[in-house]
Amino acid sequence: MPGSFPMNGGDGTYSYAKNSQYQREATNVAKEIINEVIAEKLDVQSLIASSSNSFCIADLGCSVGPNTFFAMQNIIEVVDKKYYMTQGATSGSLEFQVFFSDHASNDFNTLFASLPPSRKYFAAGVPGSFYGRLFPRSSLHLVHSSHALQWLSKVPEELLDKTSPAWNKGRISYTSSSDEVANAYAAQFQKDMKIFLNARAKEIVVGGMIVLIMPGLPDGVHRSEFPLGVLDDSLCSSLMDMVNAGLINESQVDSFNLPVYAATLKEITEVIKDIGCFSIERMEVADPRSKIGSSINVHSLIMHFRAGLEDIFTKHFGREVIDELFERTFLKEAEISSALESSHNKGTQLIVALKRE
Amino acid sequence: MPGSFPMNGGDGTYSYAKNSQYQREATNVAKEIINEVIAEKLDVQSLIASSSNSFCIADLGCSVGPNTFFAMQNIIEVVDKKYYMTQGATSGSLEFQVFFSDHASNDFNTLFASLPPSRKYFAAGVPGSFYGRLFPRSSLHLVHSSHALQWLSKVPEELLDKTSPAWNKGRISYTSSSDEVANAYAAQFQKDMKIFLNARAKEIVVGGMIVLIMPGLPDGVHRSEFPLGVLDDSLCSSLMDMVNAGLINESQVDSFNLPVYAATLKEITEVIKDIGCFSIERMEVADPRSKIGSSINVHSLIMHFRAGLEDIFTKHFGREVIDELFERTFLKEAEISSALESSHNKGTQLIVALKRE
Repeated sequence: MPGSFPMNGGDGTYSYAKNSQYQREATNVAKEIINEVIAEKLDVQSLIASSSNSFCIADLGCSVGPNTFFAMQNIIEVVDKKYYMTQGATSGSLEFQVFFSDHASNDFNTLFASLPPSRKYFAAGVPGSFYGRLFPRSSLHLVHSSHALQWLSKVPEELLDKTSPAWNKGRISYTSSSDEVANAYAAQFQKDMKIFLNARAKEIVVGGMIVLIMPGLPDGVHRSEFPLGVLDDSLCSSLMDMVNAGLINESQVDSFNLPVYAATLKEITEVIKDIGCFSIERMEVADPRSKIGSSINVHSLIMHFRAGLEDIFTKHFGREVIDELFERTFLKEAEISSALESSHNKGTQLIVALKRE
Repeated sequence: MPGSFPMNGGDGTYSYAKNSQYQREATNVAKEIINEVIAEKLDVQSLIASSSNSFCIADLGCSVGPNTFFAMQNIIEVVDKKYYMTQGATSGSLEFQVFFSDHASNDFNTLFASLPPSRKYFAAGVPGSFYGRLFPRSSLHLVHSSHALQWLSKVPEELLDKTSPAWNKGRISYTSSSDEVANAYAAQFQKDMKIFLNARAKEIVVGGMIVLIMPGLPDGVHRSEFPLGVLDDSLCSSLMDMVNAGLINESQVDSFNLPVYAATLKEITEVIKDIGCFSIERMEVADPRSKIGSSINVHSLIMHFRAGLEDIFTKHFGREVIDELFERTFLKEAEISSALESSHNKGTQLIVALKRE
C-alpha cells in the first residue's frame, strides 16, 4: 500500500488550509492554461452524450481545501460556458459531479464541512491512493491533479541500503545527492507515473482529459538548481544540528528520505508515450512566482513546508522534535533566501494536459 | 437546511460503531428479502448496458459503519451472482461503485479508515441530507437506506408553538402525546418522504431500485404501542426528574422534541403512490427481535439510544447533563423492560422495495 502522509488537517496555525497560498497562486497560473485547453480541446457535447448530461470531474490529491474548491469551480464554469455556447441552450441542464480524492487519512471531515454552500455540483469524497484504481471504468470526463504527483508512492528502497551506492547518508532528498540517489528517485517516479496513467486510462472516457500541475524542472536545468531543494537542504541541516545537539540520532537522519520528486519535461513525456493511451495536448513550464512577486516570503514558505511535511517528519522522528526542527529552520531564513536567489528562477511549475485517445 | 444529528463517531464506548448491533440484526432480517428482490426483480444486464458495465449503489444515512459495509457487501454479492448467472461470463468484468452518504457532520474520517481492505468496489463518500438531491440524474442503479428515514428533516414547527394544540409540553416525542402532536409528526414525515422520493426519482435510472429499511408500525397498531416509544418516554421521564432536581429547566424539556417518526405501511404507501415514479415491489413488516432472541438486553438498548441520540440531546441541553441523563435512565431498566413486554411485539421493522418506472 502506498505511503500516506496527509497535509495537516483542521484549520489551525499549521494547517494546510491556512498554509497553501503558494499552491493556490500556482493554480491561478494554471487556470488560464486550463481554460484554453478546455475551450479548444474538450468536446463537451459528445462526452456527455452517454451520461445523461452529467459531467464528472475528479481532483486527485485534493487535500482539505480551499484550493481544490477554486480549481473545481473554475473548471465547471469553463465547461458549462462551452456547453451552452455550442449547445445554444439555457443554463441548468448540465449537471456536474466532483470527486474529491486523497488518501483515506486525509481530513475529509474538514473538507466536507468547508464545501462551498453555493456550489453548483454534487460533491463526493474518494479515499485512496491515486497509484491504483479509484473509479469504475469510463466514469470520468476530466481529471485534475495539482501539487500531488511529486509525492512518490514510497522512498526508493536502495536509499535505505547501506551497501548500495544509492545509500543517501546524511541527506533527506536527492537534489544535492549523488547521481545514484537521483537515478533511484527517477526510476521510482517512472514506475509510479506509469501506474497512475494506466489507472486513469481505464477510468477516463475516450475524449476525456487529464490536467496535471506539478513541480518539475525544465530540461537542461540541473537538479541542484531546483528551488524547493533549498528548503529540503535547510531542513536537513537543522536535523544535523539536532544530531550534534544530541536531540536525535544520526542513523535516524540516514534512514529518512522525503518521497518527493520533481520530474523533468523529458521524463514525463517519455512515460506518457510509453503508456500510449493519451495524447499530449499541452505541456509547459510556468513560474508561479511571477504572479506572487519576485521576493518570496521565506517564513511563509517554511510554514507551507510544515503544513505539507509535518506528518511525515512526525512519523519518523516523533512529535516532540517537530517544533524544534522548524524553529531551527526559521533561524536560517537569510541563508535560505540567498540560496533561493541563486537557484533556478525561470519556472519550476509543470502544466500538462492529456487527452484519452 | 435539514437538521443534522450524526451518530456518535470514533470507536469509543459510546460510539455508533460499537453500539449498533440491533440495527445490524435488523439488516440481517432484511438481507433475505433484499436478496429475493434483487434475484427476482432487478434486470442487472439491461441496467448496466449504458454504464460501461459499472453498477452504482448508494447507502443513504450510512453513519460510520460497520453495518453499512455488511449491507453493501451483501448487495454486491447478490448482484454479481445474478449478473454472472444470466451472463454466463467469468467473474471480474462487472465493476461496482458504492456511495456512502450521510450528513456532512457524519464522521467520514472514521468511515473511510474502516473500509474493508478486501472490498471489491470503488468507495466514495457523499456528504449532505437525503432530503434533497445528492447525485447527478440517472446515475444510480440501487439505493439502500437502513434506519435513517425515521429521522425527519426537522421538528414540526407547531410543537414549539405554545398557542398551538400541537404544543408538546413535557414530552419529547409523539408516541404518548395527543393526536394533534402525532398528526404534526405525520404531516412532516409525508412532506419529507415526498422530497426524498422525488430526489431519488431523478437520481435512479429507469429499472433501478430503492430498498428502505426503517422502523414503522403495522396498520392498526396504535402509536402508543410502538416499542421504541418506551425508550423515549423513559428518557423524557429522566429529564423531568432532572427538572425536579433543579438540573435543567422545564422550559428546556418543553422546547425539545425528537425529530424521529415511525410511519405506518399505509402512510408510506400513500406517499409512494402520490409520487408516481415508483412501483412497490415488496413491502412488509419484520421483527428483528425474533433473530436476536426474545429477551432484549435493556442496558444495551439504552447504549444504542445514546450512540444515536447523544448529539441531539447535547445540542439542546448541553454536554454536562448527558452522563446524568443516561445514568438516570439506566436506573429505569426494570421499568423499561416491563413496558417493552406490554408493547407491540409482532414486528416494527418495515422493509420496502421500489422500482423506478
